[in-house]
Amino acid sequence: MRATVMYRAGDVRIENVPDATVVNPTDALVRVTRACICGSDLWPYKEMGPVEGGRRMGHEAVGIVEAVGAAVRTLKVGAVVVMPFAYSDGTCAFCREHLQTSCVHGGFFGTVDVAGAQAEAVRVPQADGTLFVLPVGEDHALMPSLLTLSDVMGTGHHAALTARVGRGKKAAVIGDGAVGLCGVIAAKRLGAEQIVMLGRHPDRIALARAFGATDVVSERGDDAVARVRELTGGAGVHSVLECVGTDQAMLAAIGIVRAGGAVGRVGVPHYDAIPASTPAFYNNVTVGGGPAPVRAYIEELLPDVLEGRIEPGRVFDRVIGLDEVPDGYRAMDERRAIKVMVKP
Amino acid sequence: MRATVMYRAGDVRIENVPDATVVNPTDALVRVTRACICGSDLWPYKEMGPVEGGRRMGHEAVGIVEAVGAAVRTLKVGAVVVMPFAYSDGTCAFCREHLQTSCVHGGFFGTVDVAGAQAEAVRVPQADGTLFVLPVGEDHALMPSLLTLSDVMGTGHHAALTARVGRGKKAAVIGDGAVGLCGVIAAKRLGAEQIVMLGRHPDRIALARAFGATDVVSERGDDAVARVRELTGGAGVHSVLECVGTDQAMLAAIGIVRAGGAVGRVGVPHYDAIPASTPAFYNNVTVGGGPAPVRAYIEELLPDVLEGRIEPGRVFDRVIGLDEVPDGYRAMDERRAIKVMVKP
Repeated sequence: MRATVMYRAGDVRIENVPDATVVNPTDALVRVTRACICGSDLWPYKEMGPVEGGRRMGHEAVGIVEAVGAAVRTLKVGAVVVMPFAYSDGTCAFCREHLQTSCVHGGFFGTVDVAGAQAEAVRVPQADGTLFVLPVGEDHALMPSLLTLSDVMGTGHHAALTARVGRGKKAAVIGDGAVGLCGVIAAKRLGAEQIVMLGRHPDRIALARAFGATDVVSERGDDAVARVRELTGGAGVHSVLECVGTDQAMLAAIGIVRAGGAVGRVGVPHYDAIPASTPAFYNNVTVGGGPAPVRAYIEELLPDVLEGRIEPGRVFDRVIGLDEVPDGYRAMDERRAIKVMVKP
Repeated sequence: MRATVMYRAGDVRIENVPDATVVNPTDALVRVTRACICGSDLWPYKEMGPVEGGRRMGHEAVGIVEAVGAAVRTLKVGAVVVMPFAYSDGTCAFCREHLQTSCVHGGFFGTVDVAGAQAEAVRVPQADGTLFVLPVGEDHALMPSLLTLSDVMGTGHHAALTARVGRGKKAAVIGDGAVGLCGVIAAKRLGAEQIVMLGRHPDRIALARAFGATDVVSERGDDAVARVRELTGGAGVHSVLECVGTDQAMLAAIGIVRAGGAVGRVGVPHYDAIPASTPAFYNNVTVGGGPAPVRAYIEELLPDVLEGRIEPGRVFDRVIGLDEVPDGYRAMDERRAIKVMVKP
């Protein structure tokens, strides 16, 4: 089968690889009908050192179950499923607490250890716990939005929850990538009355406004902090959704959060430390977040997608085949695309 | 009147100073019947550079209202009051949200700007919002416990709340000072089923056990982390109360907190940064806390004190007069006393 292999920063290839198969009795084999390129794939695309044999990329997919292992109980061949970016057994203490990203038998797709989903098919470990069966056919019109439940919509929701967005609160979203844009959807869905988007790309800002952003701040650094404070009567926002993962983004988050407020961080941290003292401590700022347990959120978000109340699929502004994946990486890296959907 | 003046690290004196008076119409003048030396006073005692004219120390007190300014509405001369370590107007947006330590007209006692309470009397700004009238006489037997509502008991409670202690949860308390010991009380009060005290002084550990600690870990650094994990089935604790404020304490907190858990930090941070990446991010750890809005907690904690369900006053193991305050600082700094009460 064909699959996406990254050998080092900037070197992404589509190659013929051995067909994915069921290996363990708890596995399912899923034929990928739609996958995507993620903002987090851009980190290795920029930074990864050489990996012998390459890394099989991709951690977001919708597909069809083609085979299941002997121990799989809940999935049938032919089911249309969403694959969250982390696999999880669904039964351990952490899964029961809805923190599937800490599953004791879990892990992540598209790593050096577990092959990814930018491919014709993918082996899904812990299939019963991992996969979520969709109540629609594989070509349903809402499929782009359903695909975002595998990562970016659930991750934006996680940012909003850990930032403690609630009814009548002021929120800010740092980062105008697909996760940040889904963060806007999530903040609005949870009742925020003011949603400030910190971003600078016209197409993304337009989408943020369509999703519910009330204000846009395109300045950087201290100027951005000053502008958000000005927009919020001086005090800052109750909730900051940090959807970038750089030192500058975390500094801005601490700078714009209101005393007693919270920062929910979901950008993979490319910074070593969170500023600890002034103002974070004296302002009683809470910092939370991490890899989103998107598996836990599908059930809650699905009705809103199916009934059209949220449209996260609008983050996809380009659809490509597998052969174009290397160009898809380039387009996202150069900010020529917000998010790329792959139809293998 | 006599008052405590710190001129630089290690140099604490009792001196005659001008009598405290009502200056602003919102002030009250409080005769101090009991004050204390705080663990946080030991930071300037160890580190403070020379201050011209000195710093008037002390931020915890119970006393009697002796005079009020023209704008004070709720306090009468003769009232027995607790003075929280921060003053606050009680009416601003932050006070209404129970975050009095961020009051827009607020500040802290015992700073270079506002004279402290290790003195015969203290001027209390924003008296209506700041002072809490006690329903008992000035020599009530529970006065030591009532005095802790000015700081350490409320601060331990804040650590427990921000660490999200709840019924059936596992908690750890880092630091066996008065705040840590009150943190044990708070964790037990909020329903923790396991409370691990990280400390090493036999007298403090004995008190921690009396307050409800179920386990004691006296190792340091990585050994302490390993021991707490061993005591909690490998996963760590849901809630860490960080009551020290050093880099080592914060590292240990991140090391022992369970995935999805929370660190509540109340130790004045003498570290620059909170470790941001592995494991804090990947474990979805939340870090919160700051100066405790103890004014907000008095009402909730008071019945438990008055009815004897909690006895935070047991943290006082030495009572001195004002003249002995310099020796009181030494005793606490050398860990010969847990917490020193001052009766001016």
